[in-house]
Amino acid sequence: MRYDDFEELRITISDKIAEWQIIRPEKLNAMRHKTFWEIMELGRRLNTDPEVRAVVATHEGRGFSAGADLTAEDPGAESSSNPRPGKNDSMGVSGVGMAMPLIDKPTIAAIDGVCAGAGMSLALSFDIRIVGPNANFLTIFTRRALGPDCGLTYHLPRLVGQGKALELMYTSRDVRAEEAVRIGLANTLVDDPRAYALEMARELADGPPLSLMWEKREVMHTWEASLQEQIEFEWSAQKQIEQSSDVREGKRAFIEKRKANFTGR
Amino acid sequence: MRYDDFEELRITISDKIAEWQIIRPEKLNAMRHKTFWEIMELGRRLNTDPEVRAVVATHEGRGFSAGADLTAEDPGAESSSNPRPGKNDSMGVSGVGMAMPLIDKPTIAAIDGVCAGAGMSLALSFDIRIVGPNANFLTIFTRRALGPDCGLTYHLPRLVGQGKALELMYTSRDVRAEEAVRIGLANTLVDDPRAYALEMARELADGPPLSLMWEKREVMHTWEASLQEQIEFEWSAQKQIEQSSDVREGKRAFIEKRKANFTGR
Amino acid sequence: MRYDDFEELRITISDKIAEWQIIRPEKLNAMRHKTFWEIMELGRRLNTDPEVRAVVATHEGRGFSAGADLTAEDPGAESSSNPRPGKNDSMGVSGVGMAMPLIDKPTIAAIDGVCAGAGMSLALSFDIRIVGPNANFLTIFTRRALGPDCGLTYHLPRLVGQGKALELMYTSRDVRAEEAVRIGLANTLVDDPRAYALEMARELADGPPLSLMWEKREVMHTWEASLQEQIEFEWSAQKQIEQSSDVREGKRAFIEKRKANFTGR
Repeated sequence: MRYDDFEELRITISDKIAEWQIIRPEKLNAMRHKTFWEIMELGRRLNTDPEVRAVVATHEGRGFSAGADLTAEDPGAESSSNPRPGKNDSMGVSGVGMAMPLIDKPTIAAIDGVCAGAGMSLALSFDIRIVGPNANFLTIFTRRALGPDCGLTYHLPRLVGQGKALELMYTSRDVRAEEAVRIGLANTLVDDPRAYALEMARELADGPPLSLMWEKREVMHTWEASLQEQIEFEWSAQKQIEQSSDVREGKRAFIEKRKANFTGR
Repeated sequence: MRYDDFEELRITISDKIAEWQIIRPEKLNAMRHKTFWEIMELGRRLNTDPEVRAVVATHEGRGFSAGADLTAEDPGAESSSNPRPGKNDSMGVSGVGMAMPLIDKPTIAAIDGVCAGAGMSLALSFDIRIVGPNANFLTIFTRRALGPDCGLTYHLPRLVGQGKALELMYTSRDVRAEEAVRIGLANTLVDDPRAYALEMARELADGPPLSLMWEKREVMHTWEASLQEQIEFEWSAQKQIEQSSDVREGKRAFIEKRKANFTGR
Repeated sequence: MRYDDFEELRITISDKIAEWQIIRPEKLNAMRHKTFWEIMELGRRLNTDPEVRAVVATHEGRGFSAGADLTAEDPGAESSSNPRPGKNDSMGVSGVGMAMPLIDKPTIAAIDGVCAGAGMSLALSFDIRIVGPNANFLTIFTRRALGPDCGLTYHLPRLVGQGKALELMYTSRDVRAEEAVRIGLANTLVDDPRAYALEMARELADGPPLSLMWEKREVMHTWEASLQEQIEFEWSAQKQIEQSSDVREGKRAFIEKRKANFTGR
């Protein structure tokens, strides 16, 4: 898969791990139209790229992403990395909130700066958030008299509960790293979130792809399912997974006391 | 809007903030039939009153509300503040649990006393709970051999998780202020919850009404939506909000370095 | 109700409390085919047994249950305690995740050892988890290249949030007792979880059965309901509960200052 046509993003594929970042650190990595559409296109490619087994988003500078910066910029011409949607698309730029969830592979955000507005929505759309001491989450939409978008109202109440979610959206107040972990917004606080996230991605990239894929899909499925439906969904997936060569490889590796070599087949 | 016909409630509208309380402090503000119906009617009026932009419930004495007190009292005659529902109404007095959620404006409960039974259900139906050192939550229904009502089983598992929710309902044990904050039942513990809540309401009453309204609606919508449906719902609202004069006013105020004057139009 | 035909489980009924455990402590109570099917059958009997008003699962040795042990064993012949499902059953052994939830009575797990894989799924299917200092939760499925089953993906995100749920499933890392309580996986950490759980069960077994039954059913119902639907569901149940003699007995006992004698009628 090629990634050299992206203009707003830097993507590095190395040993089954894709690391990507927005490359506007001087603007706290605020997202222009083109940035949104490139992230959506990136999601599609990472999902189908057989060389990629785990995804880590990192950032340079003080911002993971300061959110949308849609005013000053032209939407950008259509291009291979920017197949921008029509005007009547049902979610416009806010489709960026689907980019990471639709990747059937683990995604981790390494955050040591500000996540504001759509930048916070994007951060919450990763499976796992590793934060550093400078992480700071702000909903910000209300300060601009706008509504939340890009999936903020999907993830926030599911992560921190309805009462805390409304408080954070109503007030746009800062949530610093320590509180973020305490209330469930982030998984872990470490000094070097990028190093920690890449190490975690290393383990996951060597893990069994089908198992990881179904864990992600099943968690996305669970909120709309009854207990019975969810157990049936899990079981139906399990029947497929059990046919994979990875299950047999896992058993062999255990017996032979060696690391398993999983392929996702 | 007039509020002087309420008999069970005291309502004060001041500078876009509605403060209300049940006026039976000697009974820990336990609710009679008439109280339930007046709260439902109050919700309808506050929702449509253009002079009201934020709602705060407070209380006098040691009880926010000790719950239902339905035995000794006559249901009360029908009146302007008491349009009591028919006998076959689908939720009877427990419709009180819809009163605050159906207000398209931020609602805050300032709690420095006991919330028991339907009083706890009512407390959990506010968007935000600010508690003082004397706050105490008890489900109480099981102690009376009754089932929970007024929406307790909607809010409690969403705020504290399924395991803690069942424990609290099975045992009716006390949850004091500090634990309430720790497990997600309340937002913040302060010495003077009424002052804190009114200050927060001040900020919200000056905020952009459409933004706040949609944040509340979207959080209520989210539990039944898939990620895609929720992003589309957010986006559809955003398209409406963007047409409002408040978005333009917000930008102008930012440029002119002054406080924005939001109108909700 | 007879329980002496179970081969994999020990069941003791005493004073309205059913205590049960898997009897393979030397294998950390890992579950064979027969174990799964016996637990499902046990659930059906405990649900209908009028002598049982609360259920506590305990364990001997270092494992609550180390999960599925399906390889070395024959599925076992069909028997009264083992009405094993057909090959095309929609959930196979993973139906064990329905066994405790389908009991219309409080269920408590007393855990002072390892819960791994399906053993963790089983543990999370109890209404309440009391843990001791040796409790340890591991998802483990990914280590075996399998998908999660037995309802893990139903309960885990609802107890600890989506981000933490994915982290625990992706990494299979240990969650010890203290963290389990902090993140919402367990209710309470005590030195002797069995004694604590039995004492809690004592209180619940003497409690009003209809109230407890509906609390459990309503919490299971809530995730798929809107606020309005949930209040209507609660209210509809309340109308039934109010007709019960237990509500009258509760009032009489309160007036006569004695302990109520609830019957569930």
